[in-house]
Amino acid sequence: MATIFTKIVRGEIPAHKVAENEHYLAFLDIHPLAKGHTLVIPKKEVDNVFDLDQQTYSGLWLFAQKVALGIGKAIPCERVGVAVIGLEVPHAHIHLVPVNGIYDIDFSKPKLELSSDEFQIIARRISDALV
Amino acid sequence: MATIFTKIVRGEIPAHKVAENEHYLAFLDIHPLAKGHTLVIPKKEVDNVFDLDQQTYSGLWLFAQKVALGIGKAIPCERVGVAVIGLEVPHAHIHLVPVNGIYDIDFSKPKLELSSDEFQIIARRISDALV
Repeated sequence: MATIFTKIVRGEIPAHKVAENEHYLAFLDIHPLAKGHTLVIPKKEVDNVFDLDQQTYSGLWLFAQKVALGIGKAIPCERVGVAVIGLEVPHAHIHLVPVNGIYDIDFSKPKLELSSDEFQIIARRISDALV
Repeated sequence: MATIFTKIVRGEIPAHKVAENEHYLAFLDIHPLAKGHTLVIPKKEVDNVFDLDQQTYSGLWLFAQKVALGIGKAIPCERVGVAVIGLEVPHAHIHLVPVNGIYDIDFSKPKLELSSDEFQIIARRISDALV
């Protein structure tokens, strides 16, 4: 069965997209740890990021670099942090999270509740900041 | 002034090395969240991972992939998680952390206290598991 992320890739489930090319997609996490929290995925459905073939894997990280630099410009923060855990959705995904302290990446923290309008504004702001 | 990681690269500070080549180094985190928690760094001293040039950056992630696959073989765990925060040491570093749950990457958790012998055994086990 297709993962929820594949359904987003196919447009069967809506998402606030930030960047997209033939092989990769970046969209806002619907349960964000911070404003600007973005997921970066390969369109190819592979569970564990480290099991991606080298080309797809390094392309994914280069795509994430561009997105992270855009987030850093668009969202006031000390750093854009990175997390990959991958125990929830069996489709490799990189979390890019604006952080201001070393404890800001902690998935047990309560998530932000944002309106659809807020998500849309954030996605647009990041998207506009991409080189 | 050289970062603590540059001093490790130069051999001025000891570390439990797991893997090394001309450009990258992997060694055990001395304050681990879990047994096998490893840091992967470029030898080049750049603060923010996303500011690395594309070649060094993608080489770093490919090196981390090899190390992560080795950790996955050597250490019983569900996944090898990834975190980059980078607010403590101004030298880009990737945390590779064996995880069994989505809350296992949380830097506010108490760190493990391991003996030098334990670190050495873990480093050797991961190193031996590298392809």
